[in-house]
Amino acid sequence: MTSYAQIIQAQQRLDGVAVRTPLLESKAINERLQGRILFKAEPLQHTGSFKFRGAYNKISQLAQQGVTGVVAYSSGNHAQGVALAASLFDMRAVIVMPADSPSIKINNTKALGGEVVTYDRHNESREKIGAALAKAHQLALVKPYDDEDIIVGQGTLGLEIVQQLQILGLVPDTLIAPCGGGGLISGTSVALHQSFPQTKILLAEPEHYDDASRSLRESVRLANTATTPSICDAIVTPMVGELTYPIMLEHVAAGFAVTEEAVLKAMAMCMQELKIIVEPGGCVGLAALLSGFAPTKDKITIVVLSGGNADPQILARALSV
Amino acid sequence: MTSYAQIIQAQQRLDGVAVRTPLLESKAINERLQGRILFKAEPLQHTGSFKFRGAYNKISQLAQQGVTGVVAYSSGNHAQGVALAASLFDMRAVIVMPADSPSIKINNTKALGGEVVTYDRHNESREKIGAALAKAHQLALVKPYDDEDIIVGQGTLGLEIVQQLQILGLVPDTLIAPCGGGGLISGTSVALHQSFPQTKILLAEPEHYDDASRSLRESVRLANTATTPSICDAIVTPMVGELTYPIMLEHVAAGFAVTEEAVLKAMAMCMQELKIIVEPGGCVGLAALLSGFAPTKDKITIVVLSGGNADPQILARALSV
Repeated sequence: MTSYAQIIQAQQRLDGVAVRTPLLESKAINERLQGRILFKAEPLQHTGSFKFRGAYNKISQLAQQGVTGVVAYSSGNHAQGVALAASLFDMRAVIVMPADSPSIKINNTKALGGEVVTYDRHNESREKIGAALAKAHQLALVKPYDDEDIIVGQGTLGLEIVQQLQILGLVPDTLIAPCGGGGLISGTSVALHQSFPQTKILLAEPEHYDDASRSLRESVRLANTATTPSICDAIVTPMVGELTYPIMLEHVAAGFAVTEEAVLKAMAMCMQELKIIVEPGGCVGLAALLSGFAPTKDKITIVVLSGGNADPQILARALSV
Repeated sequence: MTSYAQIIQAQQRLDGVAVRTPLLESKAINERLQGRILFKAEPLQHTGSFKFRGAYNKISQLAQQGVTGVVAYSSGNHAQGVALAASLFDMRAVIVMPADSPSIKINNTKALGGEVVTYDRHNESREKIGAALAKAHQLALVKPYDDEDIIVGQGTLGLEIVQQLQILGLVPDTLIAPCGGGGLISGTSVALHQSFPQTKILLAEPEHYDDASRSLRESVRLANTATTPSICDAIVTPMVGELTYPIMLEHVAAGFAVTEEAVLKAMAMCMQELKIIVEPGGCVGLAALLSGFAPTKDKITIVVLSGGNADPQILARALSV
């Protein structure tokens, strides 16, 4: 089971390689939510999302073992994280991506040196394609979340938050983060719980894809059945992971599903008040707060903004909400 | 004359109050410009621009002298900086702003507690209005750039860059920053020159408003005569300051005026690659590099992105370039 000590080790691996992203704060948002809201700005991470943390933590260890190539399946952010991390170790990176991924993510993955193989999200299994490629080309599979080294790597985001809050002398009442497969929220919750055991940890996800919220509520891992498209492509996963779910059960109090409109409003608020670009899936935590999911009045709340790889069209939509 | 020692003092005043904004870097932009480009991300400063630095440095000293109210004239960013700094000392802040300022700037200034008085940019003198208000209401005038405490405060941005580069072990070949009245570039150049005397310091400004570039070239302070509107409202000033100009003459090698199209492309690049919002006037440095003003190949270049208070309409325009 993922431990705090492993996350400390991962932070040492990532030191000087990953960006120590800032905690941002806005007077206007604080006034709007009547409390103090601190935003972990992971769009400013290399490749524009937290995914670089886990990928680097995993791939740096594979490199030590003599592995020379990796394969990954991803809706886009994990793809970019893997492609960059692999390139830093002169490794080959083959990436299996849905054909309908935002073009910014496909193009960026190629620009980072990734060899992109696309598939049909609705009729093909990315797991099978990934396994076949791994076997055919002797590549090591780098899973997006259900892998201890990945969870631990994402946990460095939580550890950084702890360290940044300790410098500010603050103890948070609440932390809310996006959840797809659960790598980010599970790793982060282990790091946070160690120093701030009283902090309430919450997750947010898009409407129609509320598997994590339901799985927490019913104490059994449930799958999504929705086939409606979501603008939150980064966190649309069939179900949370086998490894991530037990950690979530232990540390995460509850989850909330947000509407597309709430997501677009949250994106606009990030642009206007924080001056950063957050992609739809990265913004669900703020969208949940704006929807009244968790009380913020007179509280200190940490919101994880997990990525910023949004196509111009979706940014334009958010600006016109 | 503004000294390095004064900037060190100002940094102590601002410690824990202003944001220590990050230096951002993008692999894609580095590849595009064939060098290493580090961006000082001042849109992440309180009030969305560097102006808070100078305003706080000035107003904290006025507060010690017993002053209870200030007046400022500003195209918008100085207004917000003054309004926030004054509110931190429970001071009254009356702000004289052009009636055609971006509405985000007028609204934000009011939200920060500023009392906004608008005027006609083309037919009225903001200096006269400011002086009259100061006299009538016993307010201290906080000039936007031609004041030593303001220049020194803006210089903390340069000092931070120096400290951040020293941590990275880097010596920059070039620094480029936007220039309106010259407070930012003059203060920053004093700080930079102290530690990196070989670094070439450049300024950028919008086309039709190239007074600073011409004033450097001809070694005499020249005014703008243009009346065409510019999207770079933040840095459209009649001429550089009496106090800022001699510093610029000593430290700034040259200036360059950029087209509106180059500015919009630079804004889009900041959104797409750096994931931050930069307003037109804040983006002229990158626009100048993209226009080929200064060689970047195999060099280390610092680009100051000075502010991010852009209206949604102009962001939408940048996204569609």
